[in-house]
Amino acid sequence: MKKNILVGQSGGPTAVINGSLYGVITQAKNNKKDHIGHIYGMINGIEGFLKDQYTDLEQLSDTTLEELKTTPGAYLGSCRFKLPSDLKDPVYVRIFQKFNEMNIGYFFYIGGNDSMDTVSKLSRCASAHNTDIQIIGIPKTIDNDLVSTDHTPGFGSAARFVATSVREIGIDASIYDTDSVTIVEIMGRHAGWLTGAAALARKYDGDNPVFIYLPEVDFCEEQFIADISSALKKRKNIVVCVSEGIHDAQGRFICEYDSAAGTDNFGHKMLAGCGKYLENLIRIRLGIKVRSIELNVSQRCSSVRQSATDLAEAIMAGSFSVDAALSGQTGKMTAFSRLSDDPYHIECTLVDVNQVCNKEKKVPQAWITHNGTDVSKEFIQYVRPLIQGSVMPPEEDGLPVFAYRK
Amino acid sequence: MKKNILVGQSGGPTAVINGSLYGVITQAKNNKKDHIGHIYGMINGIEGFLKDQYTDLEQLSDTTLEELKTTPGAYLGSCRFKLPSDLKDPVYVRIFQKFNEMNIGYFFYIGGNDSMDTVSKLSRCASAHNTDIQIIGIPKTIDNDLVSTDHTPGFGSAARFVATSVREIGIDASIYDTDSVTIVEIMGRHAGWLTGAAALARKYDGDNPVFIYLPEVDFCEEQFIADISSALKKRKNIVVCVSEGIHDAQGRFICEYDSAAGTDNFGHKMLAGCGKYLENLIRIRLGIKVRSIELNVSQRCSSVRQSATDLAEAIMAGSFSVDAALSGQTGKMTAFSRLSDDPYHIECTLVDVNQVCNKEKKVPQAWITHNGTDVSKEFIQYVRPLIQGSVMPPEEDGLPVFAYRK
Repeated sequence: MKKNILVGQSGGPTAVINGSLYGVITQAKNNKKDHIGHIYGMINGIEGFLKDQYTDLEQLSDTTLEELKTTPGAYLGSCRFKLPSDLKDPVYVRIFQKFNEMNIGYFFYIGGNDSMDTVSKLSRCASAHNTDIQIIGIPKTIDNDLVSTDHTPGFGSAARFVATSVREIGIDASIYDTDSVTIVEIMGRHAGWLTGAAALARKYDGDNPVFIYLPEVDFCEEQFIADISSALKKRKNIVVCVSEGIHDAQGRFICEYDSAAGTDNFGHKMLAGCGKYLENLIRIRLGIKVRSIELNVSQRCSSVRQSATDLAEAIMAGSFSVDAALSGQTGKMTAFSRLSDDPYHIECTLVDVNQVCNKEKKVPQAWITHNGTDVSKEFIQYVRPLIQGSVMPPEEDGLPVFAYRK
Repeated sequence: MKKNILVGQSGGPTAVINGSLYGVITQAKNNKKDHIGHIYGMINGIEGFLKDQYTDLEQLSDTTLEELKTTPGAYLGSCRFKLPSDLKDPVYVRIFQKFNEMNIGYFFYIGGNDSMDTVSKLSRCASAHNTDIQIIGIPKTIDNDLVSTDHTPGFGSAARFVATSVREIGIDASIYDTDSVTIVEIMGRHAGWLTGAAALARKYDGDNPVFIYLPEVDFCEEQFIADISSALKKRKNIVVCVSEGIHDAQGRFICEYDSAAGTDNFGHKMLAGCGKYLENLIRIRLGIKVRSIELNVSQRCSSVRQSATDLAEAIMAGSFSVDAALSGQTGKMTAFSRLSDDPYHIECTLVDVNQVCNKEKKVPQAWITHNGTDVSKEFIQYVRPLIQGSVMPPEEDGLPVFAYRK
């Protein structure tokens, strides 16, 4: 008997999260004849699904389906909704009742750490009740902080955006014949993968960014001022890249030095402004020209800096997940295993989602230089293949054309 | 007798300022046989020239020359240096002595308002002393605030970056099913051209950005809160674009509500943070999810969002200026005259530089909607042709390759 598919997106978006959706839809269509009935999409993830918000994805025109690949954001809408820890909570009864009513046999959730928590809970719940539904997580996060996978879809495009922007900013910052410091604040709460990717911006020895500070290393204000002062003796224009999540040895975020911080629905501290804080610090302490730049959400939604490698892998993760579910796998996340750096080659694997959720993969200390102000050659060797290849979104009137949900 | 060329760049950079330099160099090379001796470039503008900093531009390899077209920043370096008002100041004697020693017959200065002030002073000084040197200004500014020209090179690429980024941000901001406001702060001290270009981001009626606030309209906090509250009744996710230079009816900058402001070398107030101020205002007054994004220097240095139209015009402005100087013109700025919107067609003209310098062209009131929160169809018709066409910078290892001065 044919079963229906339900797919959703959750957490922060990436430039290629809709590539994975494209992969799920197209591979599901390939299997319509034998195994799959309808292809449904949750609107706003599991939270919207609980309000009966879903759509029939077979209604998408071929044009919209193609546009999905280069559309940033989350086409189906997203949520930040944490299912209760108690698997006996009535919400699970409601969810599985809906699954049953809609004859769902295959459930796919595209997301990061918190979304894999949802996959874990739903798959454990299904197993406890012997419900015949295959539940698979499809990874995405620009933070690249999921364990058990070489890297995550979304990271490569964000890294390409960051490296390109930092190279351009380095050019922009060097036009005046006066000492100056430019601080670039890059996304990353606890893991410095994206900030480290700024190292790719360098074109020659000693090129900017001169310093890269990751949250994996305790940040010391005095050492920072000393680092900058020392660098200014060698070159006039210094670009410094910092993770939004840099913190001192006591674990206090540098952005908290300056302002009150709220928390999001998952209890994460909401960070903003360590770049602005350090800008003011340098101005006061060194009295030189200084500017701070927050790359902000363009890191995760720049369509024009998509990495072709990243997009292809995001699509592959979607289609591989459909194959995995059809072969009876459940409670798994699709992961990437790197077979070779040069030539770069990966393959998809499946990992236990319970081993992935609620964990964070940080940059290994061995990939950070001894003084804690840069990443190593091994880091660069790891990240460089992920940013390769250009994708040109379709354009109209000089601007990229995206898929919009009607 | 052959005379030498001296060309320089001044003021803030743009994505295509080096296109104009390319235009000067290539057209000068075309005329080497008959009229032109050496082609010199000032390093860091007139300020560097006064320190004997210049370079021989004929030494550039063909590869570097080609790379110039897609290299942001100012290849020759820039300055913010104002020549004294008194044309009898000894600095003018030094400058013209150097011109004489170097056999300079043609002087080109690529820049904005303040740079045209330099062109004005040098050409008046040359005229007063009957010095045989042709002095021509080549316009550039992302602000598009020069008078006597339809638009300025640099504006089209910045407008394309802004419109693309705002469209992407609109997609990113709409993924959650909760009320939210996203404020995008765009460059522009006194003129709202670049902020107005955000209107191009709209894909359908009612699409974001819902509001656009320009410095040409007095900004009222209470009306702003009322505008936002009203808009939230119609759609959940509101994107608002604001010029960095918005100010109240008393002329006080909104960014000054929050912080102390310094001044730059020309006495301009240094602005930052009206977006951050309005973010906090909305959070306090409306208690909803709000984020602010400062597009920052990427507006002027994004190579990957160059407009092909803008680049072609920047190159044309450079080569036209060489032709003008060779034909004996001086004390002029090369300008654009629009012959037709559709099909878009412009031609280069010459205008009296004394009529250009130290003036600012603002967005006409007729091109701003009556409630002061949007631009008109005429504005959009004006700006749309300027962002057309893609340019792909040469790439290596996934990143754009730029020209670096050795």
